[in-house]
Amino acid sequence: MADPIITLTTDFGEEGPYVAAMKGVILGINPAARLIDLTHQVPPQDVRHAAYFLAESIPYFPSDVLHIVVVDPGVGSDRAILYVEIEGHRLLVPDNGCWTLIPASPERVIRVEEPRYRRASVSSTFHGRDIFAPAAGHLSCGLDPERLGPAISEWQRLAVPMPRPLPDGIGGELVFVDHFGNLITNIAATQVKRQPTTLVIDSQACPDFAWVSTYADADPGRLVVLVSSNGFIEVAVAEGDAAKRLNVMRGASIVLRWA
Amino acid sequence: MADPIITLTTDFGEEGPYVAAMKGVILGINPAARLIDLTHQVPPQDVRHAAYFLAESIPYFPSDVLHIVVVDPGVGSDRAILYVEIEGHRLLVPDNGCWTLIPASPERVIRVEEPRYRRASVSSTFHGRDIFAPAAGHLSCGLDPERLGPAISEWQRLAVPMPRPLPDGIGGELVFVDHFGNLITNIAATQVKRQPTTLVIDSQACPDFAWVSTYADADPGRLVVLVSSNGFIEVAVAEGDAAKRLNVMRGASIVLRWA
Amino acid sequence: MADPIITLTTDFGEEGPYVAAMKGVILGINPAARLIDLTHQVPPQDVRHAAYFLAESIPYFPSDVLHIVVVDPGVGSDRAILYVEIEGHRLLVPDNGCWTLIPASPERVIRVEEPRYRRASVSSTFHGRDIFAPAAGHLSCGLDPERLGPAISEWQRLAVPMPRPLPDGIGGELVFVDHFGNLITNIAATQVKRQPTTLVIDSQACPDFAWVSTYADADPGRLVVLVSSNGFIEVAVAEGDAAKRLNVMRGASIVLRWA
Repeated sequence: MADPIITLTTDFGEEGPYVAAMKGVILGINPAARLIDLTHQVPPQDVRHAAYFLAESIPYFPSDVLHIVVVDPGVGSDRAILYVEIEGHRLLVPDNGCWTLIPASPERVIRVEEPRYRRASVSSTFHGRDIFAPAAGHLSCGLDPERLGPAISEWQRLAVPMPRPLPDGIGGELVFVDHFGNLITNIAATQVKRQPTTLVIDSQACPDFAWVSTYADADPGRLVVLVSSNGFIEVAVAEGDAAKRLNVMRGASIVLRWA
Repeated sequence: MADPIITLTTDFGEEGPYVAAMKGVILGINPAARLIDLTHQVPPQDVRHAAYFLAESIPYFPSDVLHIVVVDPGVGSDRAILYVEIEGHRLLVPDNGCWTLIPASPERVIRVEEPRYRRASVSSTFHGRDIFAPAAGHLSCGLDPERLGPAISEWQRLAVPMPRPLPDGIGGELVFVDHFGNLITNIAATQVKRQPTTLVIDSQACPDFAWVSTYADADPGRLVVLVSSNGFIEVAVAEGDAAKRLNVMRGASIVLRWA
Repeated sequence: MADPIITLTTDFGEEGPYVAAMKGVILGINPAARLIDLTHQVPPQDVRHAAYFLAESIPYFPSDVLHIVVVDPGVGSDRAILYVEIEGHRLLVPDNGCWTLIPASPERVIRVEEPRYRRASVSSTFHGRDIFAPAAGHLSCGLDPERLGPAISEWQRLAVPMPRPLPDGIGGELVFVDHFGNLITNIAATQVKRQPTTLVIDSQACPDFAWVSTYADADPGRLVVLVSSNGFIEVAVAEGDAAKRLNVMRGASIVLRWA
């Protein structure tokens, strides 16, 4: 059997020693663990960014992988740390809702509180190193999750913004801006009844857009609307950066209308 | 025998879920695959950057490694996806020439088109997740590459800019600007007949340079010309950033003359 | 037994081929090596940054791990390359003091000079690929470190800035600015006798700060002073960036006074 896999998702960046310290602690407990970086570039304290990231990546993993997520503005407060099983995926997360956009109901949620599976001295500001990493190390060695703490039935959830139907159209919002400046919305492709003829983003009318299947269908520099790889409506600039072009950020409104 | 290695080279950055989704898909097919990040910081859609990157890194790997490269402005168009074997290295690449600066002739090139080795649903904008990752997973499990599609003999190639000889000198161009702001040229060290006395970059005369063996041979801040670690002429600033100092980018011209 | 682990810490960034080339060379010698990135985001040539990074991460690793560190402004000069064993940790480092803030005495230090364990051709500007990577590959295959060169007893050391006691207070300096803009000082928490009432950073009085246990104890945006996860005094902004707020960098002075 392959050695156990542990992934890491944080907002720590890479210039400081925090990710490295976590890797050291995990390997100190389980030298056979296979560590995989998912990202350390979640914007600082941006729980909603983390939530989108997890919803769009964790479901692709096989179910025996353990995912550590440390995007944790509440570190050291009385917010809980959770061990979650959801569609067979296993997560260690702060209880701030970061995992709750994964579209499924969890099989179980455990509050991690057993001191035996922490570092001997626990700081107030780096639970990634002192609680998450040791718990992951022990779980990857086969520790029964029930040993970490009690099962619970209440936890923080993120509200999902829902699009609203309009006469001959639909209104939604930008839920993610990716590395290319592509704007991903919360409007499912299936909610768009006909090819859109009107596009308004953040109150700016964008008359000159093309409805395409993929970026290469338009000339470089053209504003395009298409179905994103996750089945939602996306606004992009072919070989360009739509976020910069339109000067918009996550949370901006979008309206599509069809004739 | 060691578990199979798969490397990843993309322009996806790390803040979004794309690299993570690819890793999930690969491990879902082959949980024993050992994933190694080469880079996710190729500038968006910059095929020429990717080509230099691959030419300067792939040859150092042992031959049984499988390299996935997703720098793919043509995603979803009719551009092909290729499986390439070149000097024993194995690559999955979009057919945009990104691999063609590796200085060798390929042993074989296969057009990847067999639907059986894709995800069940293939998006138009994320073939990294839907075609490259599953193909890599299956290949790492021992799939015969011939099962992916037909061998072909035509593919896209990048033109290599060649330096031109001058009277008592040589003219070339900057083919890579690295993280330190060092300027790597297309002028092989062997083409420089004597120690240069004149340096012109992007039409700027740079009178005060030193010809050195390594950065530490000059005082910090000094403009230096030296032989780069790949055998080509490099312009740098000792403990500084030549690209910023001279305000130049890839593609700028360079002229060296000797007395 | 688990396959041998080799970590990588560099200032190479990720857009260029340097890290990838090193990984290729290591795997060419030992295909079973498990490569772990610690960081490639040390600021260029910033030995002191690397030293803090290593002091705060290496001690968390188990002792059989081999750590390659290439932050090396002296590459190609007569500076030595060292193999170090310190509290059981194994390092390959340039002799510029980058490892000397790890709080322990080394068990042994060897000067790496045996040509047999280098690449056949050694460049003047990329010893990471040509000397460090092959040495690491061979060490991970079980090479006796004594084969690399002679044991030595003299090496470069970084001076550690010491805080100075003041009447009812203490003066120190900022020794690290992390990804969040948190300011880590060289003042141990144990040196602070009572709760501070006065804070001066880089000659700026900061009257409105809160003394807290963790970030979440203050309202977002509040300047806070707390004990960092390494036991030293830290200045931060709750859910914000103290370095930007105060416009300070590493090396700035800090004074704490208590009534």
